[in-house]
Amino acid sequence: MKSYFFFEIIYQSNKSRARVGRIHTPHGIIDTPSFVAVGTNGTLKSLDNHVLETLDQQLMFCNTYHMLLHPGPDVVAQAGGLHTFIGRTKPIITDSGGFQVFSLAYGGVASELKSKGQKNTGNAVIKINEDGVVFRSYRNGDLITLTPESSVIAQKKLGADIIIPFDELPPYHIDKKTLKKSLDRTHRWEKRSLDQHLASPQQQAMYAVIHGGIIPEFRKESCETLGALPFDGFAIGGSVGKNREEMVEMLTSTMPLLPEDKPNHLLGIADLPSIESIIPLGVDTFDSSHPTKCARHGHLFTSLGTKKITQSRWKNDLGPIDPNCLCATCKNYSTSFIYHLFKAKEASAHTLATIHNITYMNDLMRQYREKILAGDL
Amino acid sequence: MKSYFFFEIIYQSNKSRARVGRIHTPHGIIDTPSFVAVGTNGTLKSLDNHVLETLDQQLMFCNTYHMLLHPGPDVVAQAGGLHTFIGRTKPIITDSGGFQVFSLAYGGVASELKSKGQKNTGNAVIKINEDGVVFRSYRNGDLITLTPESSVIAQKKLGADIIIPFDELPPYHIDKKTLKKSLDRTHRWEKRSLDQHLASPQQQAMYAVIHGGIIPEFRKESCETLGALPFDGFAIGGSVGKNREEMVEMLTSTMPLLPEDKPNHLLGIADLPSIESIIPLGVDTFDSSHPTKCARHGHLFTSLGTKKITQSRWKNDLGPIDPNCLCATCKNYSTSFIYHLFKAKEASAHTLATIHNITYMNDLMRQYREKILAGDL
Repeated sequence: MKSYFFFEIIYQSNKSRARVGRIHTPHGIIDTPSFVAVGTNGTLKSLDNHVLETLDQQLMFCNTYHMLLHPGPDVVAQAGGLHTFIGRTKPIITDSGGFQVFSLAYGGVASELKSKGQKNTGNAVIKINEDGVVFRSYRNGDLITLTPESSVIAQKKLGADIIIPFDELPPYHIDKKTLKKSLDRTHRWEKRSLDQHLASPQQQAMYAVIHGGIIPEFRKESCETLGALPFDGFAIGGSVGKNREEMVEMLTSTMPLLPEDKPNHLLGIADLPSIESIIPLGVDTFDSSHPTKCARHGHLFTSLGTKKITQSRWKNDLGPIDPNCLCATCKNYSTSFIYHLFKAKEASAHTLATIHNITYMNDLMRQYREKILAGDL
Repeated sequence: MKSYFFFEIIYQSNKSRARVGRIHTPHGIIDTPSFVAVGTNGTLKSLDNHVLETLDQQLMFCNTYHMLLHPGPDVVAQAGGLHTFIGRTKPIITDSGGFQVFSLAYGGVASELKSKGQKNTGNAVIKINEDGVVFRSYRNGDLITLTPESSVIAQKKLGADIIIPFDELPPYHIDKKTLKKSLDRTHRWEKRSLDQHLASPQQQAMYAVIHGGIIPEFRKESCETLGALPFDGFAIGGSVGKNREEMVEMLTSTMPLLPEDKPNHLLGIADLPSIESIIPLGVDTFDSSHPTKCARHGHLFTSLGTKKITQSRWKNDLGPIDPNCLCATCKNYSTSFIYHLFKAKEASAHTLATIHNITYMNDLMRQYREKILAGDL
């Protein structure tokens, strides 16, 4: 086990697969289960990274696809890596860029499942073959080749604590034979990514991405194939189902097939009802832009349920957003003031709401950890 | 002299009218000459008020017109006043609402001088007479009457440290006779505002607004008329000229006519070249949204001149925005990162740029004060 990256299981529930752990990384500890905030371009939307540092947000997810297009990995490397460039001392994870590129290619269906509404991407993807993908930058029209090797090289330049091998994101509506072909190629790509990763002495961990859609035997094959390789952890990717039921069903059969002593990560899911379902299944970390997006839309998470802050009922509410929250927004401002900022369309409303929702998520995760440790989950 | 509000002159230059002073208010001291930041809706654009508290920004300007329309003075009063409502411990000044209402009425010309481009306001102003103004809320179409008395009552509810009497803002292009009529009415309105103010025991100061356009005898008459009344300070308002030369000419003749022992304020001017011109004329404080607007447009003030941060020349610049700046943005981030945030259209770019420009303004004012004290201005 690498000394700069290892996973401790503190407690394994005997009521469910839920567990409490600690992922040790070069930039500090991630207590699991843990919510991972998304900072696509190296910043959470509407939040200064130095404010984020105060929020107990242990892991941040940055997107290689976006950083590849701007400012480019060389600019980041020249600055000394992502941590120095974006002013963050805590752990960072980057993805491979595959998700975004294949969302461009298969956009209609992928976006149907993973996000609302698709950007008009035209014919951005030029070629997909065994080598990798050629696509056109939406910024300047440049042709960019993304392969397992080039993705890992880019992620080495970015220098996150945890990196992800290049994979294909097949659409949800795909026939079994095509999905199997995609799965096999993804496995070859992940192996090539791992080889590229291991060829470098850099202090980074690499998580495999388990694929196979919602077909149990494919997920099983993926767990076995990738589980036999020296990855540091395992992410669940690909299509996780068309709704929460399908996702839970898939995870219920897949999670027990992962190496138990390695940390796992669920890609792209962090809505509150899903969290309740996935923690008992043994998910350690999971990322999503959902809590920050909700914040900017004025959906504020509280211990008493989600508040839609733009409703006029909050106009005169002098209490905090959440009486049980200790975040700077709740400490410094009334619900009435936050309501006013949203109604006045002030950008600071988004900042204050984001501080609150991120704090809520991390409080919630702490409560989950305590609950598991107390034997209640 | 009121104990909760008084003005100390620390040093009067013998080379110019420039002076260094201290305005004592219920929420602390304002060192003059001082830049006043504009937080129209009770927040600087893109900045958390609690971050602003750390920036040495001694006085903040809030707009009664906007706070009147949302959330309304009663909501603010119920919260305990603006300071509590917006989470600010330092001094606040509010205007009367007159400027915005008359910009609606005479928009074309007023906006030509005071701001770029006019919002489409339709026929928002219904009636202007000796009593005051009736206008339609752009938010919900409600008819609102603004009079000297109602403006002061609203400002009492807001509870700023310094308040402004209700005045008329005549357009720049106006014949002398009409301007004289407006001036006389403004004087009557300011007297009514002062009476309303003095009828309340609240710890607030009221600055008169000197009018008269660019006609020296009118400005003189305004100084004499209003200077004879027990105002706590004197603001220069109305049309200050169609360009900097006219403004400087007007101020050169008007400033010596103000009571020397009272603080003065220039309304709506804070571009860097104007500051250089007005400080030797003895201006104590001045407000403008210019520095924060520049920040959001990526125009960053530095000791080496203004940097247009979206230019590609900054892509690889690992140094701070300004090597001589100690703000959190310059301390924590490289020019390259700020460039990246602007290019990626991240809202946090506006926050970090605002922190920088506000710090620059306050540093600049400190330097001016030191220069005056050293006998160099």
